[in-house]
Amino acid sequence: MMDAKEYLKKMSAELDGPIKSYIGDEEPKVLMDASKQYPYAGGKRMRPAMAVACCRAVGGDASKAVPLAVAIEYIHNFTLIHDDLMDGDEKRRGMTTIHVGYGMPTAVLAGDALFAKAYQIIAGLDVPAEKMRDTLQYVSKAVWDLARGQQMDVNNEGQIVSEEVYLETIKLKTSVLFAAAAAGGAIIGGASEEQVKAINEYAIELGLGFQMYDDYLGIAGDSSKTGKSVGNDIRKGKCTCMVTHTISVLKDEALLKEFKSILGNLDATDEQCARAKQIMQDAGSIDYNLNLARQKVENAIAKISFLPESEDKEFMIALARYAVDRDV
Amino acid sequence: MMDAKEYLKKMSAELDGPIKSYIGDEEPKVLMDASKQYPYAGGKRMRPAMAVACCRAVGGDASKAVPLAVAIEYIHNFTLIHDDLMDGDEKRRGMTTIHVGYGMPTAVLAGDALFAKAYQIIAGLDVPAEKMRDTLQYVSKAVWDLARGQQMDVNNEGQIVSEEVYLETIKLKTSVLFAAAAAGGAIIGGASEEQVKAINEYAIELGLGFQMYDDYLGIAGDSSKTGKSVGNDIRKGKCTCMVTHTISVLKDEALLKEFKSILGNLDATDEQCARAKQIMQDAGSIDYNLNLARQKVENAIAKISFLPESEDKEFMIALARYAVDRDV
Repeated sequence: MMDAKEYLKKMSAELDGPIKSYIGDEEPKVLMDASKQYPYAGGKRMRPAMAVACCRAVGGDASKAVPLAVAIEYIHNFTLIHDDLMDGDEKRRGMTTIHVGYGMPTAVLAGDALFAKAYQIIAGLDVPAEKMRDTLQYVSKAVWDLARGQQMDVNNEGQIVSEEVYLETIKLKTSVLFAAAAAGGAIIGGASEEQVKAINEYAIELGLGFQMYDDYLGIAGDSSKTGKSVGNDIRKGKCTCMVTHTISVLKDEALLKEFKSILGNLDATDEQCARAKQIMQDAGSIDYNLNLARQKVENAIAKISFLPESEDKEFMIALARYAVDRDV
Repeated sequence: MMDAKEYLKKMSAELDGPIKSYIGDEEPKVLMDASKQYPYAGGKRMRPAMAVACCRAVGGDASKAVPLAVAIEYIHNFTLIHDDLMDGDEKRRGMTTIHVGYGMPTAVLAGDALFAKAYQIIAGLDVPAEKMRDTLQYVSKAVWDLARGQQMDVNNEGQIVSEEVYLETIKLKTSVLFAAAAAGGAIIGGASEEQVKAINEYAIELGLGFQMYDDYLGIAGDSSKTGKSVGNDIRKGKCTCMVTHTISVLKDEALLKEFKSILGNLDATDEQCARAKQIMQDAGSIDYNLNLARQKVENAIAKISFLPESEDKEFMIALARYAVDRDV
């Protein structure tokens, strides 16, 4: 089986140049610097790699999809800048976040600027205008949904929501941008409407698995690798699938009360967080979450069975499995 | 001569329905409410009216430009939401600002959501895809420039910049969105490339005049009408054309020192602000600013002399004059 991580690295290296080519030396410098910081610093580049792979997997010319890949990466980074501001996070990928480094106004503007630049790039796609329009429709709907998902996430914090609401939230917050990358790449590559729909669904399912695994890493991951302090999600009262599952299966009233008293308690000690994790583990919730994440990924893979065999199809499959099998 | 204010009111009434038709009852409600507040509350509607008028003035079907008009109004309101957050303003048009009413995260997201919705609307324009692409290029470049202009404004605060830098700032901060409305309307209306360019320049000049007159209202306007407390711009040290002019013509060292000591002093008394205004007036700076604003507007009108006579051309001329002759 293909090593998705290695292949991603290779694609990343190819995408790095284009990603660094769209923001010039315009004034004011501080805005350019702030806008460049996240996209230039790297990351997994899963979304842009997906755009290119989906284009090629349907027989398209990958070079036509590269600008879309850049646009999607800029949109992803615009949302990271604004999310970090909203969440008050001070570090990302070992860097100082934009609002901490440059102040709130510049963080708001750097996000807005990256968003605008993404659309400038899409407007300039070297494809027939009709394809550009179809791509634009996917992407702009995705950003609308992203804002909805992020607002739901804000609303959910400290609340116990149903698994259904949780899944809808992560679909909007995470899946739709993967889906815009994948569908956009496929459109540019010349896929039929039906194929675009299937590839869109592939990415939606992959995104769900990705986010559920991300939640898992937040609880059970190696914090020296993830950079996330274990217990953080518990203290913030983040309503993950693990939490909804524990709440729904736990019959022991005292245990349930204890669990709820730790969840969302900003002053919870490391011991208390470990205890909450243990309760979730004993309730089978961590396994439940992992199994559901893997199931989503298998659903994703099933959606693209129609694609002819190719290295890019292999990568799409490997990327889906990687989404739920990584340490960072 | 046409009464631009009356005509604007009439167009406003026609645009109100479309402006209120693109944001539905999706979840989460709080984000929908926050996103709707500014665009639904009204305003002068200069930008959307301009888009429609420019479409019709070149012989186009106005109904095709209405969605663009809405998109431009959403973009304008998205920037207002983010600007209010950045500036820490608590009131706008008599309403509580979004970040005060809903909190910072929802203000960031409501702006982002309006921005995304604007592009969804543009993607769905009922015009050939090539025209949609050309419109998109103007609009997305405008938003990129808006972010640059707003950052320059942030940087300029408390600084004395040259008139050249001031003009570049207000061009980016204000003119480019007027220009995207006007050029987009003209493109949709079927204007030639050369005509679009001229109409774009019309709106750039109009925007400069508009912003310079806005600065004038901030210093000399009737605060019961503008809703801006006179002295606010002086206390904030806003570098307007009046300030740059005063600094450059004032030869009396003591007077210059006094002027600079009031400018940007958040604790300046009303008397001190009145004194600073008097110094600017005596230096001829308020007249200089007004004359320059009027000159920009006459430049704007000259740019569209090629248009055949029509009610819409008349409105475009009247709107330009209204930009520098209004009390709010």
